[in-house]
Amino acid sequence: MSDPLRLGVAGLGTVGIGTVKIIQRHADLIARRAGRPVTITAVSARDRTKNRDADLSGFAWEEDAVALARRDDVDVFVELMGGADGVALAATKAAIDTGKDVVTANKAMLALHGQALAEAAEAKGHVIRFEAAVAGGIPVVKALTEGLAGNEIRRVMGVMNGTCNYILTRMEDAGLPYDTVFEEARQLGYLEADPNLDVGGIDAGHKLSLLASIAFGTRVAFDAVELEGIGRVSIDDIRRAADMGYRIKLLGVAQMTGRGLEQRMSPCLVPAESPLGQLQGGTNMVVIEGDSVGQIVLRGAGAGEGPTASAVMSDVIEIARGSRISTFGQPATALADPVPARATAPASYYLRMGLADKPGALAKVATVLGDEGISIDRMRQYGHADTSAPVLIVTHRTTREAVDHALARLPATGVVMGEPVALRIEAV
Amino acid sequence: MSDPLRLGVAGLGTVGIGTVKIIQRHADLIARRAGRPVTITAVSARDRTKNRDADLSGFAWEEDAVALARRDDVDVFVELMGGADGVALAATKAAIDTGKDVVTANKAMLALHGQALAEAAEAKGHVIRFEAAVAGGIPVVKALTEGLAGNEIRRVMGVMNGTCNYILTRMEDAGLPYDTVFEEARQLGYLEADPNLDVGGIDAGHKLSLLASIAFGTRVAFDAVELEGIGRVSIDDIRRAADMGYRIKLLGVAQMTGRGLEQRMSPCLVPAESPLGQLQGGTNMVVIEGDSVGQIVLRGAGAGEGPTASAVMSDVIEIARGSRISTFGQPATALADPVPARATAPASYYLRMGLADKPGALAKVATVLGDEGISIDRMRQYGHADTSAPVLIVTHRTTREAVDHALARLPATGVVMGEPVALRIEAV
Repeated sequence: MSDPLRLGVAGLGTVGIGTVKIIQRHADLIARRAGRPVTITAVSARDRTKNRDADLSGFAWEEDAVALARRDDVDVFVELMGGADGVALAATKAAIDTGKDVVTANKAMLALHGQALAEAAEAKGHVIRFEAAVAGGIPVVKALTEGLAGNEIRRVMGVMNGTCNYILTRMEDAGLPYDTVFEEARQLGYLEADPNLDVGGIDAGHKLSLLASIAFGTRVAFDAVELEGIGRVSIDDIRRAADMGYRIKLLGVAQMTGRGLEQRMSPCLVPAESPLGQLQGGTNMVVIEGDSVGQIVLRGAGAGEGPTASAVMSDVIEIARGSRISTFGQPATALADPVPARATAPASYYLRMGLADKPGALAKVATVLGDEGISIDRMRQYGHADTSAPVLIVTHRTTREAVDHALARLPATGVVMGEPVALRIEAV
Repeated sequence: MSDPLRLGVAGLGTVGIGTVKIIQRHADLIARRAGRPVTITAVSARDRTKNRDADLSGFAWEEDAVALARRDDVDVFVELMGGADGVALAATKAAIDTGKDVVTANKAMLALHGQALAEAAEAKGHVIRFEAAVAGGIPVVKALTEGLAGNEIRRVMGVMNGTCNYILTRMEDAGLPYDTVFEEARQLGYLEADPNLDVGGIDAGHKLSLLASIAFGTRVAFDAVELEGIGRVSIDDIRRAADMGYRIKLLGVAQMTGRGLEQRMSPCLVPAESPLGQLQGGTNMVVIEGDSVGQIVLRGAGAGEGPTASAVMSDVIEIARGSRISTFGQPATALADPVPARATAPASYYLRMGLADKPGALAKVATVLGDEGISIDRMRQYGHADTSAPVLIVTHRTTREAVDHALARLPATGVVMGEPVALRIEAV
C-alpha cells in the first residue's frame, strides 16, 4: 500500500465535520478502495472553541486557511468554507500555488472564478474536483464528466435547490401562500443568510453554470444564466398548474442551440407524472440528455452533512487512486467562450393574468397573442368575486421573445389588471 | 496531445456497431475529453459479409477474436461478443495475457469468471471495465465504484432487465395475461434466444452479482443469487397489487445483513408512487443506499445501441485518460468470500391463494400463519364463481423463512387450492 494521502480541511461546518467523520469511521474501507490510507493532517475554521460533533484532537490546527493551504504536509486542500471570494478564494489560490490538488464544495467560487482557478491548477498539473458543489450527494459531476463522456450532450436540467423545492411542494401540499411557507423555511433554518441565494435562484444558477461548462465544453458563464426566482409563484399558479396536470419547479435548463448556449434557472411547469414532477421536498434531481444515451435521471439528497460529505470523499478517493481529470472534463484552456442565447428553444408557455370584467376583454388579449404569432392551446377563465377574472392560457410552442413582446403590449389593451405571469412549460 | 488509444473491437452486433459509430461521429469531442485520440485498429465478428450500418473499411479485419486480442497494435480489447464462455472468454484471456486493458459489456462472462479475470488483469497491472454490462447507459458501475466510494453501502436494488419490466407493465396497461405478452415480446425481438435469461431473472441476476461485488467488497457470487423469474406473476396479482397501492417489478436486491450477503432477483411489490413503482416499459433503474449519502436513484435506458455504446465509450475514455481503477473497486485479491444468506432481512409479504368455499377455511389459514409468528396486516377475499375464493393477505414484517414454513404447511389444511404465491414487499 502506498503512502497516505494527506488532507488539509478548511471549514468545519456541517460538510467539514461530515467529512472528518467519514474519514474516521471508514478508514479501512477507504484505504482498501483508494489503494492507500487517507488521513487528515490539519484543519482550520473561524472559531476554534466551538463545540463540534467530532474528535479533532489528532489534527494540527491552523487559524488561517491560507496557512493551512500552504502546509508542506498537505497533499489535497479540501475547501469547505464557502463564499465566492475572500478567504476561500485566497486559500484555494495558495493551495494551487504551492502544488496541491483541491477538492471543494464551493459552487459560488467556481461559478465566478472556476476558469481562472482551473487554468492555474492545470498549468501546474494539479486538479480541482467539485462533486460536492452540485446536487449534494448525487454523483452528477462524475456522471457528466466521465460516465457520459462519449455523448454530445443535448440538454442538462435539474432541480438543484432543495429549499426552493421544499417551499413549492409545501405550498401545494398545505395550500399555503408563498410568504407563509418562506417564513416557515426561514424558521426551520433551510434558508441561506441571504435568502435570495436560494429563492432568487442564484445558488442553483451557480450549479447550473458548472454543469453547462462540462456538458458543452464552454467556459463557466454564470453571468449569462437567466435567473428568475420563485417569489412570484402564487398558490393559485400552483393549483391551476395542477388542474392542468403540471407541477411548478425551480428548474435549471442548459442547452446548446443554433443561436448559442441557453442557461435558464426559472420556475417552470413540468408534467406532474414526470420524474421531475414527482420530486417532492428537499430532494434534488438532475436530468442529462445525450445523443447516444438518451435521457439519464439522477436523484438524491441535494444537501446535508452526510450526502455532501459523501461527494467530497468521492473526489478525495479519486485523487488518492490517481485520477487526474481536468476540472471541467477537458483542459480549461480548450474551453470555448460561449455565445449566450436567451431561451431560443421554443416551448409552450403558461400565462396567468387578471382580466377586467368587460365585454371583449378576452378578444383583446387573444388579438395581441395572435399578432405575436402565439396560438392558444388551452384557456380557462375562473369564477371571481371582484372586477378581475383570473384567466389562464396555455400556448402552443412559441418563443420567449414572442411571449415577452406580447406581455409588453398587454397593458395597452386596458383590460389586463396587474402584472401577467408567464412560465415556461419545459418538455421533459 | 498524446498518442492515440488504439482499440480492437470484437463483436459487431448492435453494441459493437454503436461503438464504432460514436468513435467515428465524435472523434474530435472524444479527443478533447480524453486528452488523446481514440482510434479503432481492428475489428472482428462472425460474419464478415453481413451488411452493417457503419463504414468499417478503415479497420483491419480479424476472423478470430483471439487473434484480434493478441495484436500488438491494440491497446484496449473491447469485448462485445457476449456469451459466458467460448470465444469471448478465450479472447479476453488472450488480451490480458498479452498486456491489454479490457472493456466489456459481457455480464454473463464477468458473473461467472470475473474474479479470475480481474486477478489476472490486476497481476499484470491492467484493468477490466464493464459499465456497459449493467443497466445499459446508466453510469451505475461508476456511481457505485467511484461516486459513492466514501459510503458503506447498505443496499443496492434495481430493475435491470428491460424486457421483464416491459412485460409486467404491458400486462398491467393492457390487462393481458403473461403468456400473451410474453409472445408479443418474443415477436418484437425483445427476448434473448433463450428467453429464460430474461424472464427467469438470470440476466438481471448476473448484473446484480456484479454490483454486489463492488458494493460489499466481496467476490462475485452469482451462484448465491436467489433467482425467481416472472413466469408465475399473474394478471390477477398485478391488478390486486395495484388495488393495494403496489406495482410488481422483477427487482434485484443485494444487502449485507448480520447473517451474510443477501442477493435476490425476484418479483417484488413496491409502492406504486415510489420511483421504482413509477418505472414503465423498458427503462432501467438502480437504487443505491449508502450510510452517508442516503438513497441515490439512477434511471435510464437499460439496453439498445446508443445507451450501451455510451457506456462502452465511458470506459474507453476513462482508460484513455489514465484511470487505473480495480475492476471491482478494490484489488481482486482483497475481495472477501461472501457468506450467502437467504432473505434474512424482514419484510412484509403479499400472499395469494385460492381458498375452498367451506366454513372455517380462512381460520385454518390464519392459524397456520399465526403458528409461524406471521401477523396479518390486510386481508381481502374476492368474489368468485367457482369453488375457490381468491384470498390476498398482506403480512406485517416477517422473514422469508417463516413464510416458507407457512406455505409448506398450507396444503395439509385441506382448504388451499393450487399453489399459493408469496411475493416480498420491498421497502423502498
